[in-house]
Amino acid sequence: YVPEGGTTLTNDVGTAPGIYIKWNDKILILLPGPPRELKPMFHNHVIPLIKQNFIIKTRTINTIGIGESTLEMRLKDIIKEKNNPSIATYAKQGSVEIKITARGTDKITIDKLLDESVKKISERIDQYIYSYNDETIEEVVYKKLKKKGMRIAFCESCTGGLISSRFTQIPGVSEIFDRGIISYSNKSKIEELGVKGDTLNRYGAVSQQTAIEMAKGLYHKAKVDIALSITGIAGPTGGTEDKPVGLVYIGIVNKNKCHTIKCLFNGDRNSIQYRAASTAFDELRKFLD
Amino acid sequence: YVPEGGTTLTNDVGTAPGIYIKWNDKILILLPGPPRELKPMFHNHVIPLIKQNFIIKTRTINTIGIGESTLEMRLKDIIKEKNNPSIATYAKQGSVEIKITARGTDKITIDKLLDESVKKISERIDQYIYSYNDETIEEVVYKKLKKKGMRIAFCESCTGGLISSRFTQIPGVSEIFDRGIISYSNKSKIEELGVKGDTLNRYGAVSQQTAIEMAKGLYHKAKVDIALSITGIAGPTGGTEDKPVGLVYIGIVNKNKCHTIKCLFNGDRNSIQYRAASTAFDELRKFLD
Repeated sequence: YVPEGGTTLTNDVGTAPGIYIKWNDKILILLPGPPRELKPMFHNHVIPLIKQNFIIKTRTINTIGIGESTLEMRLKDIIKEKNNPSIATYAKQGSVEIKITARGTDKITIDKLLDESVKKISERIDQYIYSYNDETIEEVVYKKLKKKGMRIAFCESCTGGLISSRFTQIPGVSEIFDRGIISYSNKSKIEELGVKGDTLNRYGAVSQQTAIEMAKGLYHKAKVDIALSITGIAGPTGGTEDKPVGLVYIGIVNKNKCHTIKCLFNGDRNSIQYRAASTAFDELRKFLD
Repeated sequence: YVPEGGTTLTNDVGTAPGIYIKWNDKILILLPGPPRELKPMFHNHVIPLIKQNFIIKTRTINTIGIGESTLEMRLKDIIKEKNNPSIATYAKQGSVEIKITARGTDKITIDKLLDESVKKISERIDQYIYSYNDETIEEVVYKKLKKKGMRIAFCESCTGGLISSRFTQIPGVSEIFDRGIISYSNKSKIEELGVKGDTLNRYGAVSQQTAIEMAKGLYHKAKVDIALSITGIAGPTGGTEDKPVGLVYIGIVNKNKCHTIKCLFNGDRNSIQYRAASTAFDELRKFLD
């Protein structure tokens, strides 16, 4: 007896066939009991059936500049709306990943489900998204620079070389990376980048003014297309009420523009350094758009 | 009946006591079978007995500059000699850790066993050991410099800022770290460090001569106590028969000495960069001894 909508599965070693029925997005499978009949049927017919009918696909959206809980709040209705695809956020060091996972039996339906969710999320939080795959933020910046044929240089204080180090982990980066200056001491900011002693005295090493002078100094010295500067307080000590641990200024200079941003990061020294570096890359990404 | 050398364990809910016997470095425990007697005895008497009698202590020796398999070969007889303490090597990124683990019932005996093994190993492979605790190689270098009141600067090519970045992850490093120069392009090696164009043409950017000129240039420019340079081929491309991927030169200069070392590292780009940086720190450690 085969119920309505049921399909038979061949029994290679006996007489009673198996049956499978599609029931909504599920599959029910009925098999004969004797192990010598059941086992070969499972291997020969059930496993291929599952592989063919049950598909899981995942899309990734990578964000910077928005915390995991804020992101979840902003996407709450989209996340709760359906359970297929399911949407989950994962806090990574310096970024938050959104995973959209759809299950089903039909590739086209699954892709449609994923496309819809990705589109909705993208529209909602566009400015925070830096990639839709496994690319890191530094790789995104590298590709943009390479495409535009631009050369870059970095000068870093609080991140101590982390920006250059992350950037130079990319093979082939020598085409576009000219140099990095880690101007850790005030003396080195003056000598290497031409920051004015007066600026350091009046505004301090961690200030918008110093960030601008660092970036401009490096831009003119290295004769690159873009120069990025970063100065801040990575902690754990060195913070004051006015300038707390985690305060960071980023400057980006090209021949037309001078962009600066002030950030405040939480966490320990290494987290602050890492987040500051990720944010610097993200500012570059937006600057290059 | 309590066998010779046996001790009774109180049975709080029945009459039959438990028994434990020390047998060499092992403990045999005999308990009554009924769960309502066995369970409270296990919790109230056996667990405290184990905690009190069975001690595990571990010592760590951290090495750089010797591969895991070579290290195991060099220590083979010491490793095989006894199984308490047990000695195992663990390859980490850029270093190899030796773990010496002793078990027993007496703290003093255990410490003596550990001391003996640590001493034997230390005598055998002294020049490769950089710490006996969780300190990283960069922390070891930081402490040595701080103790001597010396200021340092780095110039990096193939490591792209990784040496400075790892060093500036240490809180308080601004006391001794002046600046870093990531002289990635040949132009920046000339402009920032005073490397002669003629040297680059004759010997190439990856050469002992360039490493020396980089370190000397930085030493005089930054007016620090020590300057370290590194130049090499991190790959995956850029290698030749004469100068393969993984070839790295390190230079260290102070007012009296100029030390250089040539290394060849295996692995992918990031492994080569990391190992080169670790080796640079290790050369500094030895230079400062």
